Amino acid sequence: MKKLYIIGMGPGDLNYLAPAARKALEQSSDVVAYQLYLDLLDEIIEGKQHHALELGKEIERAELALDLAAEKESVALVSSGDAGIFAMATLVFELLDKQPKDAWNSIDVEVIAGISALQLAASRVGAPLAHDFCAISLSDLLTPWETIDTRIKAAAQGDFVIAFYNPVSKKRDWQLDHAKQVLLKHRPADCPVIIARNLSREDENITVTTLSELDSTQVDMLTLVMVGNSETRAFDKGVYTPRGYSKKLKLEANS
Amino acid sequence: MKKLYIIGMGPGDLNYLAPAARKALEQSSDVVAYQLYLDLLDEIIEGKQHHALELGKEIERAELALDLAAEKESVALVSSGDAGIFAMATLVFELLDKQPKDAWNSIDVEVIAGISALQLAASRVGAPLAHDFCAISLSDLLTPWETIDTRIKAAAQGDFVIAFYNPVSKKRDWQLDHAKQVLLKHRPADCPVIIARNLSREDENITVTTLSELDSTQVDMLTLVMVGNSETRAFDKGVYTPRGYSKKLKLEANS
Repeated sequence: MKKLYIIGMGPGDLNYLAPAARKALEQSSDVVAYQLYLDLLDEIIEGKQHHALELGKEIERAELALDLAAEKESVALVSSGDAGIFAMATLVFELLDKQPKDAWNSIDVEVIAGISALQLAASRVGAPLAHDFCAISLSDLLTPWETIDTRIKAAAQGDFVIAFYNPVSKKRDWQLDHAKQVLLKHRPADCPVIIARNLSREDENITVTTLSELDSTQVDMLTLVMVGNSETRAFDKGVYTPRGYSKKLKLEANS
Repeated sequence: MKKLYIIGMGPGDLNYLAPAARKALEQSSDVVAYQLYLDLLDEIIEGKQHHALELGKEIERAELALDLAAEKESVALVSSGDAGIFAMATLVFELLDKQPKDAWNSIDVEVIAGISALQLAASRVGAPLAHDFCAISLSDLLTPWETIDTRIKAAAQGDFVIAFYNPVSKKRDWQLDHAKQVLLKHRPADCPVIIARNLSREDENITVTTLSELDSTQVDMLTLVMVGNSETRAFDKGVYTPRGYSKKLKLEANS
């Protein structure tokens, strides 16, 4: 079988690139990705065929990866973060399902998971995810706004810790404010919020604020916004969401 | 500063151990973990002080790691998966917040993210997470069942792809069936369900079934159960949840 690896390279810092992903890259003759990711992987993929397609060309990138894989022995399609979370893997499977080409039948597709932005953001401040959580993209480019709005309300009612991907862009500046207003009805105004920008890059910038003070003008497409649940606490050493151990801790202190 | 690394080692297969985690382990004199994880890390932590505490001794394990870190230069506390997701990191921060000891003030705590079970399970079958999703633990050992039930209903209403952690144990055998009944009211009976057991171990076993055919007697504590949303599709090459690209695909086919 020909091989198409769909690789999540993690946040960009190669210290978070899984050995499985490195091996798959090393075995591939061709690497398809957005140019920035090719640059970040430079030391591993030097000498291989690079195929950079600009942002917005996701369908073309997936199709090119499949076409190349049908031709060559082993090809890598690279996303940042986890290839299976808000990334390229689903698009490859959708093409295989909905617009298959005969040549693609010879391809064995293998997805290699990577560290997603919500995980690195959480680790930088402590343990805010900790227990039940959800991830919601605020981009209505491909998802109807009604669906997104329903999910924000459901996440608010379920008191999930929420990681918002694509919170704000130049053309979309009100969705995060809307989410903030919905959440303020369900959790405290001082609920911790983490604003994580340019994760693992040189200019990484992480701030902890509160839900009532969340300012969407400080947020852009390169930012992940994480909102704690009603029990999440910020203190001088970090932010965390208790798993329910405090009851146990108190019992022990009393016994 | 003394250093306490809280490390997510991923699913167990060292091909998913981040280089950042490996470096932190190499720098540590002492490693605190459940015995199975110490065994899996054997080639990296040989010759270091091992501190194994049995399952259920999570508070003791976190406290021991903090006490050791206050004494030594660099100590590692290891969880499987992501240390910040259903794991040890939150407990360390809770102890630092609620039951601090003076000696712990000298400790710099660093969390290192790892691949969580929901990511590996997803990658094994395609791209079922793909877009908005949530993670819910069905264990009511430390969380009131009412809270869990509220989250299941919210996730159902929000049409989130759901990863269920701790779905069934010897003493808890009805919660997954309850979740199934709730979800059947909101999504199709043939909605794909992934049952992933012993991920990345030699006896890894992954099956794809449907919501109506989900059988909780086939599930145990070592299993992750992932339920697709109303758009998730299973076909001969895998399981995926479309991101909404199909509209775009159709437009292109028509143009």
